[in-house]
Amino acid sequence: MTELGTRLDARQEALYASAVGGSSPRAVLLVLQGMDTSGKGGVISHVAGLVNPQGLHIASFKRPTPEELAHDFLWRIRKQVPGPGMLGVFDRSHYEDVLVVRVDGLVPESEWRSRYERINAFEAELDEQGVAIVKCMLHISPEAQSERLAARLEDPQKYWKYNPGDLDARAKWTDYQAAYADALANCDTDAAPWYVVPSDRKWYRNWAVAALLAETLDAVDPQYPPADFDVEAEKARVRAAV
Amino acid sequence: MTELGTRLDARQEALYASAVGGSSPRAVLLVLQGMDTSGKGGVISHVAGLVNPQGLHIASFKRPTPEELAHDFLWRIRKQVPGPGMLGVFDRSHYEDVLVVRVDGLVPESEWRSRYERINAFEAELDEQGVAIVKCMLHISPEAQSERLAARLEDPQKYWKYNPGDLDARAKWTDYQAAYADALANCDTDAAPWYVVPSDRKWYRNWAVAALLAETLDAVDPQYPPADFDVEAEKARVRAAV
Repeated sequence: MTELGTRLDARQEALYASAVGGSSPRAVLLVLQGMDTSGKGGVISHVAGLVNPQGLHIASFKRPTPEELAHDFLWRIRKQVPGPGMLGVFDRSHYEDVLVVRVDGLVPESEWRSRYERINAFEAELDEQGVAIVKCMLHISPEAQSERLAARLEDPQKYWKYNPGDLDARAKWTDYQAAYADALANCDTDAAPWYVVPSDRKWYRNWAVAALLAETLDAVDPQYPPADFDVEAEKARVRAAV
Repeated sequence: MTELGTRLDARQEALYASAVGGSSPRAVLLVLQGMDTSGKGGVISHVAGLVNPQGLHIASFKRPTPEELAHDFLWRIRKQVPGPGMLGVFDRSHYEDVLVVRVDGLVPESEWRSRYERINAFEAELDEQGVAIVKCMLHISPEAQSERLAARLEDPQKYWKYNPGDLDARAKWTDYQAAYADALANCDTDAAPWYVVPSDRKWYRNWAVAALLAETLDAVDPQYPPADFDVEAEKARVRAAV
């Protein structure tokens, strides 16, 4: 992790710098999905936390507001697309619109079925705009979830992380796994691949996401921009200004 | 720094948690000002980087856009006030409106002179709303700035940090110091104190800002919220759900 941290930090700085005067700056987007307690927050802390926070854009997608529901499901997502040079992290995402929305029957089947294709078109559009996407499904076992929910109830400093509604989602485990399976199968594209990250062990989960993110940044290979001024002339100006 | 990091991380988590079901969540705002190369970016990386990025709200105030200029100077600032539970960091701030704006004569003197009082009223309002403010002026010597500007010109990976305009601001060093002195004298209030942080040595600068931020968080003393559910009943539900 120490080595990965150094590598991520260096790549992220170059990514950030590339947007300052660079000719075609890129961005990177890490999408995190997973059942409750799968560790989306842990990944943000332990993986995103390895780089300079100034270059991070973290967006959490919670239950949609009435205004968000009145728009197309991608409306609120588009507003959070990372800008040039930024490393975006989505804590939940547009995939909620084919997961909880499907499991709880919040829209007709014809509507959520149509979304796989629209998600693929959206992600292809981002790819064309220079946003490299890597999607991680943090996969935990029901046993691990049970232990983690119980642990939250043992420690008063973890009560805030516990939501009685989590057990309702857990009761629909099989439905969620089916919804995840379809989302993974239908939206695993070259432009925006899906990775299933075994997440019962936190150290492995963090290492795997960090490694996938580092590979994505390696592929983007961001470059520091050249000087848009005369370096020698500026050196002389600085010397003269002493 | 390791000890301060542990302390900051723990306090920041409690601050973040306090906004989830807590009765009166607070927020904290760290304002960073200083001449070019004084290390505002370094503080964000090395101090803000010590806590979970999910709880950070970093705002950089660059040259105002035409839209921002058309509004009151606090308009763009208000939009970036950290929400409940958040640790906000301002990389430059509303103080630019009594610094560069004054030095470069961008508005009449009567206008910028009126701003000290309006800034104090604004910060008092934030304090009443529960936003604890700590303001750090990163103070460097002209010699240190000269060395750092020269260093940026020696390393192609640092060209992006160099801006020929920085030398124009440097040429007005005395004017800037006078503008800073007035801002510090007029806007050092109990609600939002100013600290001048000697910043020629990076390790000292980072340590001092981290310590000031930790003291601010200690004073806020954020508390984890109590459970808003029946803990024993939920334990039984989790056991039954295994």
